[in-house]
Amino acid sequence: MGGAAPVGHPPRVVAFGGGHGLAAALAAWRRITPDVTAVVTVADDGGSSGRIRREMPVLPPGDLRMALAALAGEGERTQAMARLLQHRLGGTGVLAGHPVGNLVLTGLAELHDGDTVRALDDLCELLGARGRVLPMADVPLDLVARVESVDPDDPSRTRTIRGQVAIATTPGRVREILVSPPDPPVSPAVLEAIGRADVVSLGPGSWYTSVLPHLLVPQLRAALAAAQAKVVVVLNLEPQPGETDGFSPEEHLNVLQAHLGGVALHTVIADAESVVDRRGLLSAVHECGAELVLAPVAALDGTARHDPARLAAALASVVGAR
Amino acid sequence: MGGAAPVGHPPRVVAFGGGHGLAAALAAWRRITPDVTAVVTVADDGGSSGRIRREMPVLPPGDLRMALAALAGEGERTQAMARLLQHRLGGTGVLAGHPVGNLVLTGLAELHDGDTVRALDDLCELLGARGRVLPMADVPLDLVARVESVDPDDPSRTRTIRGQVAIATTPGRVREILVSPPDPPVSPAVLEAIGRADVVSLGPGSWYTSVLPHLLVPQLRAALAAAQAKVVVVLNLEPQPGETDGFSPEEHLNVLQAHLGGVALHTVIADAESVVDRRGLLSAVHECGAELVLAPVAALDGTARHDPARLAAALASVVGAR
Repeated sequence: MGGAAPVGHPPRVVAFGGGHGLAAALAAWRRITPDVTAVVTVADDGGSSGRIRREMPVLPPGDLRMALAALAGEGERTQAMARLLQHRLGGTGVLAGHPVGNLVLTGLAELHDGDTVRALDDLCELLGARGRVLPMADVPLDLVARVESVDPDDPSRTRTIRGQVAIATTPGRVREILVSPPDPPVSPAVLEAIGRADVVSLGPGSWYTSVLPHLLVPQLRAALAAAQAKVVVVLNLEPQPGETDGFSPEEHLNVLQAHLGGVALHTVIADAESVVDRRGLLSAVHECGAELVLAPVAALDGTARHDPARLAAALASVVGAR
Repeated sequence: MGGAAPVGHPPRVVAFGGGHGLAAALAAWRRITPDVTAVVTVADDGGSSGRIRREMPVLPPGDLRMALAALAGEGERTQAMARLLQHRLGGTGVLAGHPVGNLVLTGLAELHDGDTVRALDDLCELLGARGRVLPMADVPLDLVARVESVDPDDPSRTRTIRGQVAIATTPGRVREILVSPPDPPVSPAVLEAIGRADVVSLGPGSWYTSVLPHLLVPQLRAALAAAQAKVVVVLNLEPQPGETDGFSPEEHLNVLQAHLGGVALHTVIADAESVVDRRGLLSAVHECGAELVLAPVAALDGTARHDPARLAAALASVVGAR
């Protein structure tokens, strides 16, 4: 056992996020506990998800699909099913690039009269998933950001940019971000999962478009502020162009802190080698009232991805399940 | 036991066809035996299948999907999976109308490097299918027909029409039909299934576009001519506009006979109430060297569909498994 007190059941974990960052967190959490609930961003408006949400009134499926695949059972059949859901259709037409799972999740939600939570539970069962996948809101969200221009000749210092893709691709630093609608409905299943969680993790992932949006939804932030759960932040390994150009780990943390609104942080996990100014980061972490865990969590292949086993070791020390 | 000799294993059945007609035959056969192999037309160029085959080099999935759904296991989960595969996407965009199963089968075949038979076997397993579904050829087929004009002012008495949809919607009677390419490759799994079959059924279904095409593929016709199986023809309940306008049951049979090329028929099943000229039909059946089974096989709801239980009773009398 690690330093934290052991609990009488497998740790109950809720992981907030989206995209590859959330998939990395889930790949780590599934090594620690079977009781993982992914609470997934539904603000994507690009790629297959964007094409689908422009065609029909459903939640953008892409981030949900990735989370499902990340929690799929280890058996040959469930892994084959995960590969199928992740496979992108080929060809040269209007179907090209759609992951099969996006279409399956969309069809299943339609078949259940728009009940995406039921569709996700069905797919979790089909995938023998180690945990559950839920949407952060019951309606599709749009992100709206104020982005600081990097063009010295631009007379506007900041511009308002709408939509995840636009925000992520507009050069410059995001200065403020909002969700639209501002107070979307949240599934009771999400609020229950937060209420019973031992740990809630935020990140890693696209900071402004996959990590912060959860804190901008009033019902989610309130549930998190009222929860008993330890809140763990997993910092990114490097800045992301278009969102956090040039951000240090402590700047990532400062941005997060500005959106916490009453949510207390328990632990901040950073990759030991990615931190240049340890003293600065430590000071920022202490200002949040949190503890810093500096650990080797980056992938060994040199990509800016978290290694599931190494991240799991760092997370396990927090929940006391090591 | 019926009149035929019983066999030492559950009857081995191969059902040729496509569309709703094949689904009706499969719904009947599954009541008789777990050993059913559907050999399905791959000449559809309309609807979702047509859109998909114009986008990517895959077999048109629609008739294959319908056969899969018709053989799905009876349990709640496998029936829910069948409903998902049959569900057509909604909305107002380019995805609208695609059955989820068409996209799943297409993606799975891509994932298996174009091996549609492997993809179908995977889906049969997922569906707990009572039997197997195979394509009649390993490449997409085009149908080419000579259609007799019904317009008295049309200077051409016959026109050459290419494509299943065009043939089915051009007014007039089809006089001749060909497949392109003329000698397509056929999966060894199909030839083996025919070689070991106790019974092969043809029809019901769109006569020129779902039933006859199998007899136009040289490898299929040769395998059927060499097989020990009893060949059973299930006649349609009524003529089909655009294909068999005004055809009597005996005219359906005559057209089939003209394409048999060495295949011997064993039994012809017709709905007792759909036959006007019993003597004419009996004479046509005897000319084929076959026996006629006149039985009440139509659905009781007044639609021109076969009732699975009643058709099963008629088929069981042929295989001696009643």
